[in-house]
Amino acid sequence: MRTARSGLPEPVGVVPTMGYLHEGHAALIRRARDQCASVIVTLFVNPRQFGPNEDFARYPRDFARDRALCESLGVDLLYAPSVDEVYPPGFATSVDVSGLSEQWEGAHRPGHFRGVATVVAKLLIGTRADRAYFGEKDYQQLQVVKRLVLDLEIPTAIVPCPTVREADGLALSSRNAYLTPDDRPRATALHRGLMAARSALAGGERDARRLADSISQTVVSAGLTLDYAAVVDPTTLAPLDRVDRPARALVAARLGRVRLIDNLELA
Amino acid sequence: MRTARSGLPEPVGVVPTMGYLHEGHAALIRRARDQCASVIVTLFVNPRQFGPNEDFARYPRDFARDRALCESLGVDLLYAPSVDEVYPPGFATSVDVSGLSEQWEGAHRPGHFRGVATVVAKLLIGTRADRAYFGEKDYQQLQVVKRLVLDLEIPTAIVPCPTVREADGLALSSRNAYLTPDDRPRATALHRGLMAARSALAGGERDARRLADSISQTVVSAGLTLDYAAVVDPTTLAPLDRVDRPARALVAARLGRVRLIDNLELA
Repeated sequence: MRTARSGLPEPVGVVPTMGYLHEGHAALIRRARDQCASVIVTLFVNPRQFGPNEDFARYPRDFARDRALCESLGVDLLYAPSVDEVYPPGFATSVDVSGLSEQWEGAHRPGHFRGVATVVAKLLIGTRADRAYFGEKDYQQLQVVKRLVLDLEIPTAIVPCPTVREADGLALSSRNAYLTPDDRPRATALHRGLMAARSALAGGERDARRLADSISQTVVSAGLTLDYAAVVDPTTLAPLDRVDRPARALVAARLGRVRLIDNLELA
Repeated sequence: MRTARSGLPEPVGVVPTMGYLHEGHAALIRRARDQCASVIVTLFVNPRQFGPNEDFARYPRDFARDRALCESLGVDLLYAPSVDEVYPPGFATSVDVSGLSEQWEGAHRPGHFRGVATVVAKLLIGTRADRAYFGEKDYQQLQVVKRLVLDLEIPTAIVPCPTVREADGLALSSRNAYLTPDDRPRATALHRGLMAARSALAGGERDARRLADSISQTVVSAGLTLDYAAVVDPTTLAPLDRVDRPARALVAARLGRVRLIDNLELA
């Protein structure tokens, strides 16, 4: 990878992925293609960001299809290392972003953001990327990555890209492949809840707790198990009392064994 | 710093220091000057690598003298950031190197190597150094730095440099300035103990525990308080049973309020 990288015209854009690419990834790749002389896609299902009871082993994989999509989008370098290449024997380093990592996804997935921060730091440094493209779908991850890049002075510009959605509002995710035909229509409840909160805010409701409740109610009414719904500061992710400044709504819920997350800018 | 750095001819060598420079630092700088087109010295007394009961506040400082020494040695850039520049409000990232960080110095100075690893990662990435020069005096630190650079794919070659000693064997250290005239002669006990272990090994003693004991006895006989003496694997720092392969001896002891460390290659 380092040899191939050194031959690439700059600026170099990188799109870090766990593979099983969908239209959301394609949007990141197209954006990188537009803005950079060269595009690297990394494909690595990172075991360190999965908990012991999570879906690492069954996470969907289709390398041939991913490679074909990258080729069709004009990707210059597809870097798909093995677990042993990323974490060789003796590997001992971890990167933590405190404060941002403990709440929301971090509370439900202990160690998740340590795994994310460690592998993203390694990939950005290793690819010497000038720009890196991340979807807003994983909003907390995006804040963690922005923080660690700033703190460690990694010379990569982080480019957030809007969430890509199905026609009915469901945010694209590789994990949507797990949804049963019965569950698939109910999965829209996350986006509907977020839109309900946005409508309530437009209607004058500024109490963050009541806005979050409108999300919860939509999600629970649809038969999902809520992990959290919250209205937070867009940078620190601390819960707000009142929405009288920039605010982001976050939601996570489960449908059977499938865990879904989504988020929306409120103000 | 980044602006100045981008104008420097490459390769760039960096010598990370906490200032109060002595002949040991000068040796690192001269080595960098020999091997690199440009030399950066960083001067930062890093609060995060001091424990709450340690000597951060009274750590010796003399910026004017340090600057003059750097000028006389042909240093191109002296980077001496404030604590707020290195750790601005909101700073949240830490780097840990497990295994290597918990034992020896890490056991006596909880959090020390997290502080070291975090600031060294930041300085190496921020200066985009091609080479970085570290003294073997801080041998465990050197192993921690080598590990994190490898693990995070930081493109900096780590160059270990031999410990510089006074004529009587005392390893140079900024903390030697704390030694009272009465204590100064006794401080040689660390080096004498290490040399005693090396002699015992040359005499056929291969039992690591007995070699470590010969260090302890020398140090304790001189009236110092021993923190540890050990014979370890040079890379993992795990204690050895027998010295039938490469080995390093480590020692740490206190003389009043002054804490001293030293180490020596045994085999």
